[in-house]
Amino acid sequence: MTVELLSVGTELLLGNIVNTNAAYLAEKCASLGLSCYHQTVVGDNEKRLYEAVRLALSRADIVILGGGLGPTKDDLTKEVTAKVFEKELYEDKHTKERIEQYFRQMKSGKITDNNWKQALVPEGAVVVDNHNGTAPGLIIEEGGKTAILLPGPPNELKPMFEESIAPYLSSRQPEGIYSKMVKLCGIGESKAETMISDMIKKQTNPTIAPYAKTGEVHLRLTARARDEKEAECLIRPVLEELYRRFGRLIYTEDENVTLEEAVVELLKEKGYTVTTAESCTGGKLAARIMNVAGVSSVYKEGYITYSNAAKRKLLGVRKETLDDFGAVSRQTAEEMAKGAANAAGADAALSVTGIAGPDGGTKEKPVGLVYVGCHVKGHTRAEEFRFTGNRDKNRDYAVVRALTLLREELLAGEK
Amino acid sequence: MTVELLSVGTELLLGNIVNTNAAYLAEKCASLGLSCYHQTVVGDNEKRLYEAVRLALSRADIVILGGGLGPTKDDLTKEVTAKVFEKELYEDKHTKERIEQYFRQMKSGKITDNNWKQALVPEGAVVVDNHNGTAPGLIIEEGGKTAILLPGPPNELKPMFEESIAPYLSSRQPEGIYSKMVKLCGIGESKAETMISDMIKKQTNPTIAPYAKTGEVHLRLTARARDEKEAECLIRPVLEELYRRFGRLIYTEDENVTLEEAVVELLKEKGYTVTTAESCTGGKLAARIMNVAGVSSVYKEGYITYSNAAKRKLLGVRKETLDDFGAVSRQTAEEMAKGAANAAGADAALSVTGIAGPDGGTKEKPVGLVYVGCHVKGHTRAEEFRFTGNRDKNRDYAVVRALTLLREELLAGEK
Repeated sequence: MTVELLSVGTELLLGNIVNTNAAYLAEKCASLGLSCYHQTVVGDNEKRLYEAVRLALSRADIVILGGGLGPTKDDLTKEVTAKVFEKELYEDKHTKERIEQYFRQMKSGKITDNNWKQALVPEGAVVVDNHNGTAPGLIIEEGGKTAILLPGPPNELKPMFEESIAPYLSSRQPEGIYSKMVKLCGIGESKAETMISDMIKKQTNPTIAPYAKTGEVHLRLTARARDEKEAECLIRPVLEELYRRFGRLIYTEDENVTLEEAVVELLKEKGYTVTTAESCTGGKLAARIMNVAGVSSVYKEGYITYSNAAKRKLLGVRKETLDDFGAVSRQTAEEMAKGAANAAGADAALSVTGIAGPDGGTKEKPVGLVYVGCHVKGHTRAEEFRFTGNRDKNRDYAVVRALTLLREELLAGEK
Repeated sequence: MTVELLSVGTELLLGNIVNTNAAYLAEKCASLGLSCYHQTVVGDNEKRLYEAVRLALSRADIVILGGGLGPTKDDLTKEVTAKVFEKELYEDKHTKERIEQYFRQMKSGKITDNNWKQALVPEGAVVVDNHNGTAPGLIIEEGGKTAILLPGPPNELKPMFEESIAPYLSSRQPEGIYSKMVKLCGIGESKAETMISDMIKKQTNPTIAPYAKTGEVHLRLTARARDEKEAECLIRPVLEELYRRFGRLIYTEDENVTLEEAVVELLKEKGYTVTTAESCTGGKLAARIMNVAGVSSVYKEGYITYSNAAKRKLLGVRKETLDDFGAVSRQTAEEMAKGAANAAGADAALSVTGIAGPDGGTKEKPVGLVYVGCHVKGHTRAEEFRFTGNRDKNRDYAVVRALTLLREELLAGEK
């Protein structure tokens, strides 16, 4: 079965935003065993959108449209797709109630009239509830062709796809596609790929496809099988071989588990609490740990210490350390981690100090130089990194390296 | 003049990588006054690529192709485009020498035979040197249509575009397009659109297009004009009308300025320092402020106080306040903000306390209930919000609301 992605939005044509939705949907569709041969972006223009929908439906069995479902006049995806399928729009009572409820919860006062546009749906369409916004998703099936309409904001599109669209697409597949995601940290993509290049070449069922994420490598195993049990039998030996080669670098084989969840789980197993002391990452590391729902038993408090004075006051970093080695140094990172654990009364602590850029670099300490400190139960260690990205990328990499270091230290004591 | 972007690569169709090239090229083309109505992605497949090139050339004056110029058999962009233009390929001596020179510099030893494929160019094509790789860029012009072929790796494509393609495109433009982005905070997209629906309807030059961002609304004004001065004359009265209607809700008219930058700029103007005390946002607010390069004169330290004990210890929130009103309350938010300013010795402070979800909600205090506190120079205020998103979205909204509240308070004293 073939699928085609059609992203709608003038902001994509103008390059205001990067089309992360397309990459997300493409990866998900591939994992569901759908073949995708075209992705297209069009703007909020009726004629061109109409032509694009028709062309996509002529080429593929299923067309997934993202964007253009909002309340404004610019938003035309639903209207145009309904026209292609020659369907009238009618007001969906259930969706109208959901929009009312949404605004009640938001206490947004008066609902402006244009919002009701979002309650109009094409006749015969399946309405997919949006738990993170007002515009519902829609599935329109006719004459062997299917259009799936999703709201554009990624925090609405992604949960809707996971919850409703993926199961729907899976149910329409004639043969079963089963996939597993093996996630690694602490190794680069090209090294990981080299270590299993023979497997990637040899393997046909399951296939192995590497994906590079910031500071992580994900390996997707995709098997074609009659049922889950057969898929399990096909995947198991490949998985075992991956464990033989990568060992503890694999932090999960669960698609939905993130690195921060794996680390928090380890902390919970040990009954440890953790704290953070951040300079250049400025709260990003703490926020990442706090992504984990129910983290309150593990994480109680944390410190953002951008200035040297704050490093001394809140973490007890010694003046001599700052004077002799500088704020961006292995010694300062170690004292920050140790001091944070001490101040918070936590079993473990992570610290980050570095030069994220674009300014502040010198010949000895260039932009991208970052020290990550890790303290676990009396043992302190720091690592040096030299990142080559922009300010934002450098900080993201530092956060992943910090989590990876803590994971290593927590596992170090185990056999 | 119209341009269309055609990205070639199976890795894009599989979602292995995000199409950042398209966003980059789209923005550059928009800023050069080219109208772009379609972006397409196709894989390394001869038939589909041929069809895609033909279709793009039938719709646009200029087609920019990215990717598929490498040395492997998979790389077909040049061969297929030459076929569409009915051109033969011949070996370009200059390019062959450049490839030899490149490998000498890289000290890569033996050059594999397939590399010479990259020295083949279509007859009549302009060869564009690649200073960061082996595959040259190509410009093919015929019958009023132009195809521009660029190598796929961003570190080759971007410099080549800047150096050679942008000047070429600029020289071919008869008229100019000028655009301005007006950014608002503290108002929803549909309300903003309603307030200017007459303008959106009436305006043709410049046009006005609203974009919803998390907690923000951006309005893009796009004018067609002979030169920048004429564009300025067209845009100015519309801009003035927007200021009359939205007033201080407009935080910038500079495309590149973010809300956090606008807030930090205000703080700098006043010579104020700021700190943060976060519960449910767990560092996200601080990290957002820290996005601003050179923020160190304004932001020195911040607190993540997830537990009640931390709120008391680090911020001096009173036990009675927590007992009587709870951690998620207006009173606690106010004491957190005031206490943070005090602890950090800062002029201003923001606090966030709430129930981000998915768990922890009650009937009185449901998931999504968030209090944002703001303290500026002795004056403290808190606002209640009820968000309806998931954990991540609720936290993102809270961060924007906090920045918006601080901006309001900083402006409140001004006439």
